[in-house]
Amino acid sequence: MADAETLDRLYKAILDRRGADPETSYTAKLFQRGRAKIAQKLGEEAVETVIEAMAGDREKLAEESADLLYHLLVLWADAGLRPKDVYDVLAAREGTSGIAEKAQRNKVSGKKGK
Amino acid sequence: MADAETLDRLYKAILDRRGADPETSYTAKLFQRGRAKIAQKLGEEAVETVIEAMAGDREKLAEESADLLYHLLVLWADAGLRPKDVYDVLAAREGTSGIAEKAQRNKVSGKKGK
Amino acid sequence: MADAETLDRLYKAILDRRGADPETSYTAKLFQRGRAKIAQKLGEEAVETVIEAMAGDREKLAEESADLLYHLLVLWADAGLRPKDVYDVLAAREGTSGIAEKAQRNKVSGKKGK
Amino acid sequence: MADAETLDRLYKAILDRRGADPETSYTAKLFQRGRAKIAQKLGEEAVETVIEAMAGDREKLAEESADLLYHLLVLWADAGLRPKDVYDVLAAREGTSGIAEKAQRNKVSGKKGK
Repeated sequence: MADAETLDRLYKAILDRRGADPETSYTAKLFQRGRAKIAQKLGEEAVETVIEAMAGDREKLAEESADLLYHLLVLWADAGLRPKDVYDVLAAREGTSGIAEKAQRNKVSGKKGK
Repeated sequence: MADAETLDRLYKAILDRRGADPETSYTAKLFQRGRAKIAQKLGEEAVETVIEAMAGDREKLAEESADLLYHLLVLWADAGLRPKDVYDVLAAREGTSGIAEKAQRNKVSGKKGK
Repeated sequence: MADAETLDRLYKAILDRRGADPETSYTAKLFQRGRAKIAQKLGEEAVETVIEAMAGDREKLAEESADLLYHLLVLWADAGLRPKDVYDVLAAREGTSGIAEKAQRNKVSGKKGK
Repeated sequence: MADAETLDRLYKAILDRRGADPETSYTAKLFQRGRAKIAQKLGEEAVETVIEAMAGDREKLAEESADLLYHLLVLWADAGLRPKDVYDVLAAREGTSGIAEKAQRNKVSGKKGK
């Protein structure tokens, strides 16, 4: 039941709630508050994920990871990005491995000047 | 080709690379450097995702989101967490909507004392 | 009145509030909740600072920066670190400039393997 | 030598390096790369500070805190914000304590709708 398509279903549910009443839907409220607030929530959930990763509680890490993914999907929806757009980026990299993988990563890093 | 199962395939590829040569595999190198380094990379990619969300470039947002997801999967692998464990958390929440959704969120927030 | 020593005075005030009633002192409550919570708040305030830096509102950036510094001082107090310990690190780097500065930074980066 | 004014001196040094050669000055290079890059570096240093706070190494926490403060000062300089502007915000809050402190914090939280 809970498989990879859970993310796609959740994304569709998020789109559906976009027009809902912000008083009763947390998702609708997020959209109403706008991009900066959604991005802030994503950042905060990432911080909590980092904390739980260091604290070492696997169950809490799963909970925070779910919060992180949910807010990432809301951010995508707000930016007009579909999950498939991101899967495409991942799939394009997926074939790489070994040295090829490393070269790919270096190219990415180089591009961003890290 | 690039669908929701892209994440599952990527997760399996990550597990496979775990034992690879850190000199040639970025993934193997991440595992070698350990939990704190993996968590740090996740946090950094989240920051970059926040930046691109605010800057408003959809293509770069997709790229950074892919980086974020990749490092999240590595973190899960390092912590012994499977994607399904997180999908389960999301699916358990998925049925909720409207007021129910809000109550659920409040409960979650309350638990964490935000 | 509000000068560099504001940070030192604030740090002392934070130490004083450590034993205060968590019901009435936000600072005492933070200490009570512990390291992970304090680190989480620091991370969250950093995210908000990043957001306001991108949004471009100088007044809000000053507000968020103040929140960030306050939580950083609480973190130091919780970890037994004095402001002077951090000023010492900064002062040791301060003389550097030009090429020396760059070499110093590279050394730091190299050490952390960024 | 290393006292609260270390931050003011560092801020002045940062302003001086603004016009330096980006090839030899890390600070000048940051300014050249612009606001998004500076904000990104601040966020990344905050993540590292969170990691070290959780890992519990006091010396590394001091190092990461120094990195965080340095990039915060660069961000202020880029945004036309002086340290004094932030000290003023902190000093205005400084008198508060006990219940007053809590009310103040709640007001701040309320404003931001956390």
